[in-house]
Amino acid sequence: MPDTRFDVLAIGNAIVDIIARCDDSFITAHGLDKGHMHLIDAQRSASLYADVGPAVETSGGSAGNTIAGVASLGGRGAYFGKVADDALGKIFRHDITSLGVTFPSLPAVDAPTATSIILVTPDGERTMNTFLGACVLLDEADVIPEIVQAARITYMEGYLFDRPAAKRAFRLAATLAHAAGRKVALTLSDGFCVDRHRTEFLDLIRGSVDIVFANTAEITSLYQTADFEAACAQIAKDAPLSAVTRGAAGSVIIRGSERVTVSAEPIDGIVDATGAGDLYASGFLYGHARGASLAACGRLASIAAAEVISHIGPRPERKLDDLIAAKGLSVK
Amino acid sequence: MPDTRFDVLAIGNAIVDIIARCDDSFITAHGLDKGHMHLIDAQRSASLYADVGPAVETSGGSAGNTIAGVASLGGRGAYFGKVADDALGKIFRHDITSLGVTFPSLPAVDAPTATSIILVTPDGERTMNTFLGACVLLDEADVIPEIVQAARITYMEGYLFDRPAAKRAFRLAATLAHAAGRKVALTLSDGFCVDRHRTEFLDLIRGSVDIVFANTAEITSLYQTADFEAACAQIAKDAPLSAVTRGAAGSVIIRGSERVTVSAEPIDGIVDATGAGDLYASGFLYGHARGASLAACGRLASIAAAEVISHIGPRPERKLDDLIAAKGLSVK
Repeated sequence: MPDTRFDVLAIGNAIVDIIARCDDSFITAHGLDKGHMHLIDAQRSASLYADVGPAVETSGGSAGNTIAGVASLGGRGAYFGKVADDALGKIFRHDITSLGVTFPSLPAVDAPTATSIILVTPDGERTMNTFLGACVLLDEADVIPEIVQAARITYMEGYLFDRPAAKRAFRLAATLAHAAGRKVALTLSDGFCVDRHRTEFLDLIRGSVDIVFANTAEITSLYQTADFEAACAQIAKDAPLSAVTRGAAGSVIIRGSERVTVSAEPIDGIVDATGAGDLYASGFLYGHARGASLAACGRLASIAAAEVISHIGPRPERKLDDLIAAKGLSVK
Repeated sequence: MPDTRFDVLAIGNAIVDIIARCDDSFITAHGLDKGHMHLIDAQRSASLYADVGPAVETSGGSAGNTIAGVASLGGRGAYFGKVADDALGKIFRHDITSLGVTFPSLPAVDAPTATSIILVTPDGERTMNTFLGACVLLDEADVIPEIVQAARITYMEGYLFDRPAAKRAFRLAATLAHAAGRKVALTLSDGFCVDRHRTEFLDLIRGSVDIVFANTAEITSLYQTADFEAACAQIAKDAPLSAVTRGAAGSVIIRGSERVTVSAEPIDGIVDATGAGDLYASGFLYGHARGASLAACGRLASIAAAEVISHIGPRPERKLDDLIAAKGLSVK
């Protein structure tokens, strides 16, 4: 096995978030499905932007948020994702590299950096509207074998399955990781995304994925059942290890017949749910890469998720390693 | 007098903020004066950006923040300021116009939109590093007489005095406003800024300004005294009306021999002081434009300031009119 230079390699759609608050009536009036990610084109993105109120811009992207959280916890991270060499692309690159994350992906030409207009309703729920831009250019050429081989866990977004080239990159990375004796993790990303790719996700989970992340909507969509327990029983058979998040009800970690129930970290109220699942994955992956128990992985995951939903924006504002140290936790 | 279409017209440096957290050691190592605004060139800005951690981007600029606050309170606002037609300029324009603020200034060419790298230390204090870019192109041609004449109060930043063309624009706007029977307000902006322009500020205050905003550092710098009370006694003679902020100690409003002492609105802790003075001015100006008492103006000012320092970023996250309604206050 090559040197382990990275705890986690994350691969995903590299996106700059445009975060705006709105009322529920705005979501309805624009025909959006609250809580979901919508893929939109440049024209629709411009038209939606013209309608929303003042916004804040921040680096985002599901796997990008996750690797930022891993770095904030003190983990060694790498990231593959495609941005342009434009103003937003430079912001994305700065933010991720300034955390110490290795980001070798070359800039795209002829397509702008992806944006997601994230609408945050008064209940803290977020509804995403993503224009993929340069992300559509991520392909197998962006998968650098030495980095995959040097990472304990390669973590990928289900969102990658929305584009054939990215899907091929996903499969190549999974193959390389396993050939090097490494682990592969997948997040199901979004209930609609699961709907679009159910068969392929099931095939992947049954053969090529070691760790699955999902929330209630995603796992029940995957197994087409309204019964959460039945869905958990299914994933216990299909995946060696999975973590299913349930919002304020915490999460459950499933490994064969073993179940670890994890409480959500108490907070005063959700300001913005953006990044909750992404940061849950940060804490879990960092703990798992460092050999922590499943219960400890779950606790780290919950703390990281609680930090990110207590403010606007999908990445930690506080250093997560300070936060876990303040709670008396430690991971080597 | 022409129709009163606007409560407030604000004129200032139009800036996109790049907000990053750092430790005090970073401030020291980079030779910065904590709590102050530094003017830097493009090269220094790039070099500082390369050194800072992950950031969040948001529209800023002192007077821009103030007019955003006025709009959030339900006031009718206009703004003159210079951005380029680049990605950050489009963000600035979107954010201010989406609040309903009239922003007629034409885009600059040949200079990028201004940025300020704002470093927030753990105590919530902010240290600003501003590359003026397109702001240096604001001049008298940007002062649209019909808008000045239609605004109850024209509010301007002391920062404008750092450039001769902007200073001329300031003087033209003040002359037009007074000729139309309107009021002129000035914020002293920054202790260093006062140092650079003390004589001119004193001349202005003694002849051309109706309302002065300052904090402790600025007013004591203006009168070159360490004695806050002595400085207040001086401004009482020099300006018809002034509001002096003292951080957690609240503020004092001075009109001739009249003094109104205002408490700071209680908050759990300062997350980011950026925008505190700007939003104080929002509340005060909105109240004053609508004929509220000085005590009511001070209360509105304190509530607006408290909202903005309780989160990252220089503009309100919550609708300020909802916030004041929830506190049982109302302004016509």
